[in-house]
Amino acid sequence: NQSALADIVTELENSLSFEQIAVLLEAFPIPLRKLIWQLINQEVQQQVFIEMRNESRQLILNASEDEQCFPLFEKLDADELLDLSENLSDRFVDYAVSKMTDKQRALFKKAQEFSNDEVGHWQSFDDIQIPQRLKTSAIKKILSNSLPPLTEVFYVTQHDAKLIGEVAIAKLIVMQDDTPISTVMNRDYEVLLTTDNIYSAAEKVIISGKSALPVVDLTGCLTGRLDLQQAHTIREEQKDIQLFKSSGMIEEEDLFSNIWISSKNRAVWLGVNLVTAFLASWFIGLFEGTLQQVVALAVLMPVVASMGGISGSQTLTLIIRGLALGQITDANQKAIVLKELKVGCINGLLWAAIIAGITYLWFENPLLSLAIYIAILGNIIIASLSGVWVPWLLTKLKIDPALSGAVILTTVTDIFGFITFLGLGALFLT
Amino acid sequence: NQSALADIVTELENSLSFEQIAVLLEAFPIPLRKLIWQLINQEVQQQVFIEMRNESRQLILNASEDEQCFPLFEKLDADELLDLSENLSDRFVDYAVSKMTDKQRALFKKAQEFSNDEVGHWQSFDDIQIPQRLKTSAIKKILSNSLPPLTEVFYVTQHDAKLIGEVAIAKLIVMQDDTPISTVMNRDYEVLLTTDNIYSAAEKVIISGKSALPVVDLTGCLTGRLDLQQAHTIREEQKDIQLFKSSGMIEEEDLFSNIWISSKNRAVWLGVNLVTAFLASWFIGLFEGTLQQVVALAVLMPVVASMGGISGSQTLTLIIRGLALGQITDANQKAIVLKELKVGCINGLLWAAIIAGITYLWFENPLLSLAIYIAILGNIIIASLSGVWVPWLLTKLKIDPALSGAVILTTVTDIFGFITFLGLGALFLT
Repeated sequence: NQSALADIVTELENSLSFEQIAVLLEAFPIPLRKLIWQLINQEVQQQVFIEMRNESRQLILNASEDEQCFPLFEKLDADELLDLSENLSDRFVDYAVSKMTDKQRALFKKAQEFSNDEVGHWQSFDDIQIPQRLKTSAIKKILSNSLPPLTEVFYVTQHDAKLIGEVAIAKLIVMQDDTPISTVMNRDYEVLLTTDNIYSAAEKVIISGKSALPVVDLTGCLTGRLDLQQAHTIREEQKDIQLFKSSGMIEEEDLFSNIWISSKNRAVWLGVNLVTAFLASWFIGLFEGTLQQVVALAVLMPVVASMGGISGSQTLTLIIRGLALGQITDANQKAIVLKELKVGCINGLLWAAIIAGITYLWFENPLLSLAIYIAILGNIIIASLSGVWVPWLLTKLKIDPALSGAVILTTVTDIFGFITFLGLGALFLT
Repeated sequence: NQSALADIVTELENSLSFEQIAVLLEAFPIPLRKLIWQLINQEVQQQVFIEMRNESRQLILNASEDEQCFPLFEKLDADELLDLSENLSDRFVDYAVSKMTDKQRALFKKAQEFSNDEVGHWQSFDDIQIPQRLKTSAIKKILSNSLPPLTEVFYVTQHDAKLIGEVAIAKLIVMQDDTPISTVMNRDYEVLLTTDNIYSAAEKVIISGKSALPVVDLTGCLTGRLDLQQAHTIREEQKDIQLFKSSGMIEEEDLFSNIWISSKNRAVWLGVNLVTAFLASWFIGLFEGTLQQVVALAVLMPVVASMGGISGSQTLTLIIRGLALGQITDANQKAIVLKELKVGCINGLLWAAIIAGITYLWFENPLLSLAIYIAILGNIIIASLSGVWVPWLLTKLKIDPALSGAVILTTVTDIFGFITFLGLGALFLT
C-alpha cells in the first residue's frame, strides 16, 4: 500500500501550497505523519517545514533520525532561519549557519542581535536598495529582473547605505534614461526603526496603506523592510497566542502533541483553578450550619455563581478589546464603569426577578425567593463592575488581562455570589 | 474652553490617520464624542466615518440631526457605500446613491446583487483594466499616472471585458514601445469568482503571495479585485466576531453603546445560561436528602464542577482551531479522542489525588476523599472527551462551535460532576 500512498503524496505536492501541506500534516497522528513526511520530495519538505507551526516542527524532528533532518537546514535564507531558530537545538542552528551564503550568514548574525519583540529580529531582507550614484538606465536594468512580492517602491541609499528616499517603480515606466532619479524621488516617507516594538510596527505597516515600510538602524542606514503580509501574520499570531493563553495553555499545541507535554502545558491552569475553587469552597464551608438547615440553598448555588460569571465575562471581553486598542484611559474609565453599572442593573433586575419567580414555583418559599433575588441582582452588578476593574487593574500591574482576567473575575463573582446568597439565607431562613 | 478643544482636534487631524481617529473617538462618552465630532473638518469627518465600526457609526448618526449627516454621504465610491450600507437607513443610502457618479452608482447596484458572503459584494473596483488592442506606448502613459495601492500587475481584457491575462508593471520598464503586450502577458494565473465564498476567497489571496487576485463573473469578465489588505481585514473581522459571540454577545459593542441595546445584546446569553444552570440545580435537587446528611458535599461541589470545566475548555480551544483549519476528519477523529483521553487520564490522576488529599486534611473522612477522587478523575476524563465530541457534533449539525460549544460543554461537565460526586456521596456516606 506504500506505493498508493506515494501517489497520493505526489498528487498533494502538486495541487497544494506549502502552507496548506503544513496544515494538512497536522491532521495526521504521529506515526502516519512520519510515514507521509518521508514520502515528500526533499525540496518540498524544506519549504513545508518552514511554513509549519513551531510545535509541529518539533514533532517532525523528534520522530526522525538527526541524519535525515540535516537536509532541512541546507541553504536557508536569513529570514527563514530566523523563523525556525527560536526553539531549535544548537546543532541544527550551527549546521544551518555553516551552510548559508556569506551574505545571508551576516544578515542572520545581525538580526540575532535584536530581541524577539524588536523589528530588527523580524524584518525581511528582500528590499531593493539602489545606490544614489546609479544612472537611471542601470536602475531600469536591475528592476526589470523579477521583483520580490509586495514591491511597489525601491529605496535610494547613499554610499554608506543611508536611506535618502523612495521611488515608485511605476514612475520609471515613462522616465527618460537621462533624467536623474532624484527628480522623482519621494523624500517624505515613514520608516521603522530596528529597535521599534514589533507589534506597534506591524500596526504602522497595516495603517500605512503601503505594501511595506523600510527599516533603518539608529544611524539611518537601510537594513531591510517589513511588508504587509508579515505585519498581518505578526498581528494574527499575537491574537492566536492570546486565545490559547486565555484557556490557560502556556504554549500552542499540535492536535497530536506528545501527551506528557500536553498534560504539563494544561496542568498549570488546573492548579490555579484548584486554588480558587478551594477558596470558594472555604467560603461555602463558613455556612455549613445554614446549608444543613436549608438544603435548597445548596441546590441553587450554581445558578447564583454562573449568572455572575457570564455577566462578568461579557463586560471583560469588551474591556479587553478596548484596552488593546488603547481606548480606555484614566479619563474615561469612570464613564465606562457608569455605563456598565447601568447595563448590569437592567439585566440584574430582569433576571433576578425571573429567577426569584422560578424559585418560588419550585420551593414555595417567599424568603428564599427574596434571598436569591438580592443575591443575583447584586452579583450581576458586581460582575459588571469587576469586568471593568479587574482587567484595568491587571493592566496597571503590567499583567496581560487576556491571560488571567477570566479566572480572577469568576473567583470574585463566585465568592461574592456564595457569601451574599448563603449569608442572606442564614439571615432570613434560620 | 471650546477653542482649546478645537485646537486639539485640529492637531489630532494632522497627526493621526483616519483609522486612528475612528478608534480614538470610541474612547469618548457620547456627549463629549458628539462635541469633538462637530469640531472635525467636514472632509476628514467623511473619511473617519468610513473607517469606524458599524456600531460607532450608528451612535454618530443617532447623536446628530439628519441635516448634519447628509454631507457624510456625498460623493462616495461604490466600495465605500457598500461598507457603510449594511445597517444604514434607506434615506441615507438613497441620498448617497443620488450623489454618486454614474459609474460608481452602476458598480454599487451590481455589487448589491450579491449576498454578504460572496466575493461580488466585497471586491474593490480599483483594478487596472487594459484593453488588449491598446499599444504599449498608450499603456505606459496610462500606468505612469498614480496607481492604487497594492498594484503590481495590470489585467488585460478583450473588448467584452473578458480577462485574458495579467502583466507585471515592472515588465514595462525596459519594454520597447513597439513590442506587443501579448509577449509579456502571463496567461496562467489564479482568479476568484464573484460567487465564491468570501472567507475562502480571502484565504486564497493570503496564500497566493500576491498583493491582489482578480475577480471575474461567470462569463469570465473582469469585475474587480480583492487585495491583501481587504483579505486580512475580512479574516480578522471574522475572528473578532467569533470572539464576541463566544461570550454570548450577538453584536459587537461600542464601549459607550446605548445601554438598552447593550442590555438586550447580552440578555440572550444570560437566558441560555439560566436554563442550563437550573438544569444543573435540578440534578443537585435529586440528592437533597444526601446533602442534608453530608453537608461537606455541598461545600466541595464547586471544586468538582470547575476542574471539569477548565479541562474541557482547554480541549475545546484546540479542537475548534483544528476544525477551523479543516484538520479534523472522520478518519483521524478516533486518534484525537484517544490522545485527549490519555492527557485527561494523566491530569485526572494527578489532580484527583491532590484534591482527595486536601479533602482528607480538611474533613478527615476517607470515604469523602474517595468519592471526590473518583468524581474528579471521571469528570476530567469526560471533559476531555466532550471537548472533542461536542464541537465535532455541533459542526456536523452546522452550528458554529465557537458560539455555543463552551456553554454545552460546561453543562455536560457540571451535570456529570454533580451526579457522580453526589451519587457516590449517597452510596458511601449515608
